[in-house]
Amino acid sequence: MKRDLSGLVTPRSIAVVGASPRSGSVAGEILRNLKRCGFSGELLPVNPKHETIDDLRAYPSIAALPSDVDMAVLAINRDIVLPAVAACGERGIRNQIIITAGFKESGEEGIAREDELRKLVSRFDLNLVGPNCMGMITSTQEMRMNASFSRWFPQGGQIAFVSQSGSLGETLLECFEDAGLGVSLFVNLGNRAGLTENDFLAHLADDETCHAIFLYLESFADPQGFRALCERIVGTKPIVVLKAGRTEAGVAAVASHTGSLASPDAVVDAFLAQCGALRVNTIEETITALRALERGVLPKSDRVVILTNAGGAGIIAADACERVGIDVPPLDEETRGQLAEFLPPEAGLGNPVDMIATAGAADYENGLRTALGAADAAIVIFRPPLVLPDSPEAVAEGIVRVSAEVPEKPVLVCTLSEQETEVVRRLRSAGIPVYAMPETAVDALHFFHRVRDLREPWRESQASVPRDLDGARQIIEGALAEGRGGLTFDEGARILGVFGIPVCRHAHAESDGQALAFAADVGFPVVAKIDAPDLHHRFELGAVITGISDEAKLADALRRLRDVIEVNGLKRARILLQETLAGRELIFGMDRDPSFGPIVMFGLGGTLVEALKDVAFAVSPVTVDQAVRTVRSIRALPLLEAFRGEPAVDIDQLARILASLGELSLALPKAAEIDLNPIIATPDRLAAVDILITLRP
Amino acid sequence: MKRDLSGLVTPRSIAVVGASPRSGSVAGEILRNLKRCGFSGELLPVNPKHETIDDLRAYPSIAALPSDVDMAVLAINRDIVLPAVAACGERGIRNQIIITAGFKESGEEGIAREDELRKLVSRFDLNLVGPNCMGMITSTQEMRMNASFSRWFPQGGQIAFVSQSGSLGETLLECFEDAGLGVSLFVNLGNRAGLTENDFLAHLADDETCHAIFLYLESFADPQGFRALCERIVGTKPIVVLKAGRTEAGVAAVASHTGSLASPDAVVDAFLAQCGALRVNTIEETITALRALERGVLPKSDRVVILTNAGGAGIIAADACERVGIDVPPLDEETRGQLAEFLPPEAGLGNPVDMIATAGAADYENGLRTALGAADAAIVIFRPPLVLPDSPEAVAEGIVRVSAEVPEKPVLVCTLSEQETEVVRRLRSAGIPVYAMPETAVDALHFFHRVRDLREPWRESQASVPRDLDGARQIIEGALAEGRGGLTFDEGARILGVFGIPVCRHAHAESDGQALAFAADVGFPVVAKIDAPDLHHRFELGAVITGISDEAKLADALRRLRDVIEVNGLKRARILLQETLAGRELIFGMDRDPSFGPIVMFGLGGTLVEALKDVAFAVSPVTVDQAVRTVRSIRALPLLEAFRGEPAVDIDQLARILASLGELSLALPKAAEIDLNPIIATPDRLAAVDILITLRP
Repeated sequence: MKRDLSGLVTPRSIAVVGASPRSGSVAGEILRNLKRCGFSGELLPVNPKHETIDDLRAYPSIAALPSDVDMAVLAINRDIVLPAVAACGERGIRNQIIITAGFKESGEEGIAREDELRKLVSRFDLNLVGPNCMGMITSTQEMRMNASFSRWFPQGGQIAFVSQSGSLGETLLECFEDAGLGVSLFVNLGNRAGLTENDFLAHLADDETCHAIFLYLESFADPQGFRALCERIVGTKPIVVLKAGRTEAGVAAVASHTGSLASPDAVVDAFLAQCGALRVNTIEETITALRALERGVLPKSDRVVILTNAGGAGIIAADACERVGIDVPPLDEETRGQLAEFLPPEAGLGNPVDMIATAGAADYENGLRTALGAADAAIVIFRPPLVLPDSPEAVAEGIVRVSAEVPEKPVLVCTLSEQETEVVRRLRSAGIPVYAMPETAVDALHFFHRVRDLREPWRESQASVPRDLDGARQIIEGALAEGRGGLTFDEGARILGVFGIPVCRHAHAESDGQALAFAADVGFPVVAKIDAPDLHHRFELGAVITGISDEAKLADALRRLRDVIEVNGLKRARILLQETLAGRELIFGMDRDPSFGPIVMFGLGGTLVEALKDVAFAVSPVTVDQAVRTVRSIRALPLLEAFRGEPAVDIDQLARILASLGELSLALPKAAEIDLNPIIATPDRLAAVDILITLRP
Repeated sequence: MKRDLSGLVTPRSIAVVGASPRSGSVAGEILRNLKRCGFSGELLPVNPKHETIDDLRAYPSIAALPSDVDMAVLAINRDIVLPAVAACGERGIRNQIIITAGFKESGEEGIAREDELRKLVSRFDLNLVGPNCMGMITSTQEMRMNASFSRWFPQGGQIAFVSQSGSLGETLLECFEDAGLGVSLFVNLGNRAGLTENDFLAHLADDETCHAIFLYLESFADPQGFRALCERIVGTKPIVVLKAGRTEAGVAAVASHTGSLASPDAVVDAFLAQCGALRVNTIEETITALRALERGVLPKSDRVVILTNAGGAGIIAADACERVGIDVPPLDEETRGQLAEFLPPEAGLGNPVDMIATAGAADYENGLRTALGAADAAIVIFRPPLVLPDSPEAVAEGIVRVSAEVPEKPVLVCTLSEQETEVVRRLRSAGIPVYAMPETAVDALHFFHRVRDLREPWRESQASVPRDLDGARQIIEGALAEGRGGLTFDEGARILGVFGIPVCRHAHAESDGQALAFAADVGFPVVAKIDAPDLHHRFELGAVITGISDEAKLADALRRLRDVIEVNGLKRARILLQETLAGRELIFGMDRDPSFGPIVMFGLGGTLVEALKDVAFAVSPVTVDQAVRTVRSIRALPLLEAFRGEPAVDIDQLARILASLGELSLALPKAAEIDLNPIIATPDRLAAVDILITLRP
């Protein structure tokens, strides 16, 4: 549900509760920040000890405030903050920012205080930011509001910045300022007792001033809500997420491979990709990405041309492209011919185009125009040489002109210097991203490509097939009623069948005759094993016998398994026969993450999964298209391709199995974990040959 | 051989040939650069058209110069440069820098000109830099010499910088200047018609002013010489190499896997690691690494402590450590107790130590001193908060004091700002590396660890075993005399035997009786195949029959193979029997790189090597220790460990095989390529089961 945050983001009047003329008073600093930044609305300090504060009339109490105040900032002692919040509520001030710390971040008393605060949020239907936060900033042409104790009032721009951390938020604001990145909105969420990142995402979805959204998060308040909002937004504006914090808990690792392999970070990676959000990992990547994305133009294809007046830097750029997988295609004959008409004979007409040190403004302008005819983006390396026929600014103007002619093709400039010269300023003011280092420009281009790929609309989830969910639930309830923690193979196979996940041919053998009939039907060799719920270490127990090649060996295997059952006193144990399948071994799994809910896993099975941990995750629900990307993201993908006479494994079918597991995880919440290890891909089909499903009541 | 470069690096007098007062004259710019930088020796412009240039007496000709000039810089027309070089030689000027272009980089005429120049180098035994270069710079307390047309005269420092590229060299000098990195020597090698990077390495080995050597290279003038010099130097000063340029040619890919898998870049990586040099890939990495290494102190262990006054930045740093594999160990109880004595109760005493925003100079000083007691390096994040009890400079002084107390433990500071404040200057002047971003400080720490690991002395190559090299050579010469391009299995096995590389048990079967005797000896099942030189596509031809399980099948197999020989008209074909080995498949190989000479390869064989291309290289000669690292560097290393009852593969033995292949590659230059694919690792031994050795006359 979208909340109206206009009274919070663009208030006409702000009460600053606790403001004092004393230096070092946090509320006083906020009041002075509001004055200093040029907030044009009304400011109403609240402090019983003063008649005026900083030349403003002070109010003795919240109750004494006029009735139409849009927003209140509270920076007062933790012991009096709750009554003040209530007083604001009573006075009709629904928009509040609580700077005050001492809530859930500080022990039991604080947790209780935050619980009380949440009740007030609900009672007065507050738009509440915080508590324990730095505040909020709006910087647009219409509104300049620094309702925070940050010293940094950012230049206006197209980026909205939502930060869970205050100190890192301020640091990033400072870095953005250094980098010349403009910010339209900054909010530090603090403890998120009221508004979360999701409320701001909903607000920003329709905010015309914001072209790109950046979030610094240490956890997600509501991952599924976050995902739904992202899916709606990323088609029109990129969402960049810096997610930090090594979650200690992560998935509770238990019996399954899925659980033990799911590193919290891998799940976050998968989740953000499913959201269509670009994940960055460092402050530097953040700046590189936002500088490229703030304008909102994405290149149509990966074709890039590099122009340079410094050969070595061109090589560095081309090398960097190769490292991140960007193709720098050779220029066609026609383009080379056009370039040769005006570039000197010493120029290199490959890609990079080395226009050599004598290149002037006309060379840059004509070179870029010509080269962009054969590409969808350009990296222009321009470093003023010792002797330049034209002023560096003239070169910049030429680049700006060409860029304006083809606004749909990003032009990135690299100056080979950290210095913010007039050239840099002119280019940036024309919306052209400028980087010091060629490799950073290449990283930026790579972010363009990734955001474009993330933007591709996901295909809808598989046409929802009618499923016998009741039948599946009854199997689980039946097992739980018997006090079991897991299902038998046969029960598992029936549940998988409900979701269309294929299982190998199998049958319980109550007698030698039944076993022989099964073997005659599927053909030798067969596998015989003990099927009992909660039976672990089956191989070690001798409870699995493979490669049974004839009738005599089958009879012997049955005898041995019956012995194992008797010797170990196994309960509810039956003997299960399976066909033997040969092919590539795959693993599929499902587990439940405390933060993201059910997750599914795919990887190569057998030796590889255990030794290389080469698996990929997705968070349920999983569309078939997301599942395809998940399957394709494993390192060992080439092993699924056609190989030594075996046909390629059908990736679409793998994806459907993964998507079905996602569906299962949501439909059957009492299925705690699932391992299908392995599912075997034979040349003509896929089938699970081992099934582990554990339950939770 | 080490050349005396003192007359080049620290000349007392320099002739500038071609100098002119005209602006834009390159030689004139060099003369003015020399004056401007404060060169204290004698400057002697040579130009027949002027009596004085820039208030200096000009000489009408080289012959007119005094007899004791140390060095000449030549920036004159390409058509008159050779006579001028000779004239300098005649005048006894052995140190020369040739700026002039128009040599091998510019077509046939230029190549001929460079050949002539090389003759002059040899005739006069010149120390010649260039041609087609930017020149050379010395910046130390004793000598300020800008004998280049670079505008940048670097501040003196501990870094020597050898650059193959002029334009990128100047760019990097500018970046170093921005970054506050001092450079003692800069040289642009240009076309390397005289001196190469190796000559400068030899000079720098004993240069006390230089603590770290940085090279920008696009190719190696003499890789083996480079390696020998590096091995001598890296024990005392780090060598950092930025190697650019995607070599188009690379290894000539032919029949072998080794050739087709050896990407030029992978070989360069392997080579530089064997040299003990740190490879960097970007300008930014270069600066990060040099900033850390210029002081020359390396941490003893990987234990690092992170101190911060901004919690979020501490998390970012810890995350970055995790990503690059640096452990941030929790602090012990004693250290935590000591910190708790002076830090406020809100402080976080884990690692990172979050001293919160109120931390002052004493907190930083005492905190760092205490924490360094439990670690061998520290990352200190210090960003002046809104309200700080002490001046930021006081905090910096505290950090400098502690760092001086424990000079053997690197302290890296992160300021969370690109601004070069007084704090940054104070820290840097005390030799403390300062970075803006926490992740960059972590990268720097990672470089420390890598350089330290590279410095570990390599074990000597395996005690040189007496080898029957003559026997091996005779096999090859015999095959070549028959006009063959390859060896038979049996010949290959004998050569491998000479180098101690194990081969499976095998025998030629001239008759059914011999075959049966072999099978009886090694036991069924056996493998039978056609052993013929230059026989490709053996599997497709039906020339290999595996899993022969009894006498009847063996007789049948022999019959079928004889048919294949007859039908295909195979010459010199014999039937070979082998024992059947089961275990993990490995691949070893050797190929010859046009630049580095013989290289060896190791990887997992079978499906994995073909699909994942997970292989590692080393350049011959390969010490056992280098071979161990090579083996350990494959991604699939866990697959060599103990697994499902099979013992671990003996990595030392793999390394000895790889080192032996390296020995073979040097001893038998007519062995062009070798594939041992696979060598099978059974639980108790290793043995090659297929051998491909191609020859070159």
